[in-house]
Amino acid sequence: MGDDNVIYIGNKPVMSYVLAVVTQFNNGFDEVVIKARGRSISRAVDTAEVVRNKFMPGVELKDMKIGTEVIEGEGGDKANVSSMEITLKTKA
Amino acid sequence: MGDDNVIYIGNKPVMSYVLAVVTQFNNGFDEVVIKARGRSISRAVDTAEVVRNKFMPGVELKDMKIGTEVIEGEGGDKANVSSMEITLKTKA
Repeated sequence: MGDDNVIYIGNKPVMSYVLAVVTQFNNGFDEVVIKARGRSISRAVDTAEVVRNKFMPGVELKDMKIGTEVIEGEGGDKANVSSMEITLKTKA
Repeated sequence: MGDDNVIYIGNKPVMSYVLAVVTQFNNGFDEVVIKARGRSISRAVDTAEVVRNKFMPGVELKDMKIGTEVIEGEGGDKANVSSMEITLKTKA
């Protein structure tokens, strides 16, 4: 399985990401991973909730992970940023 | 067990909540629940990560939940907001 079933959350409206996730399920993936860092984490949770509650009742939460990543800035300065991964899958 | 071991995340700096969580563990709780809604969810993840990685290596992630809550505004209008609960516990 490649990375095609990974949706990276950025600054677009939540519905853009909801559409992306729904599209991946409709393309035949039985799992879609939603990844976010920093402030986008809230939007990742919104995306997962909207997909499950409004569009795809046949999809459930498989796994959630949180972590910390080190981001290196232009000047070589480093900062920690939280990350989150939400895996959704179609119910068996 | 009462609700004393629940820390609600608002708009203060992350370190305020980190301190609150660390204090509850030092008060003898072996579990602390971090709760957040909407945009504060990112800060809840930051709080959990900073507690685990910087202050209390003896604390681990026990559970994470996401959900949707209905908020009723003053005019009676309703809006959905995502919520998250992160449970940390001391390692056995």
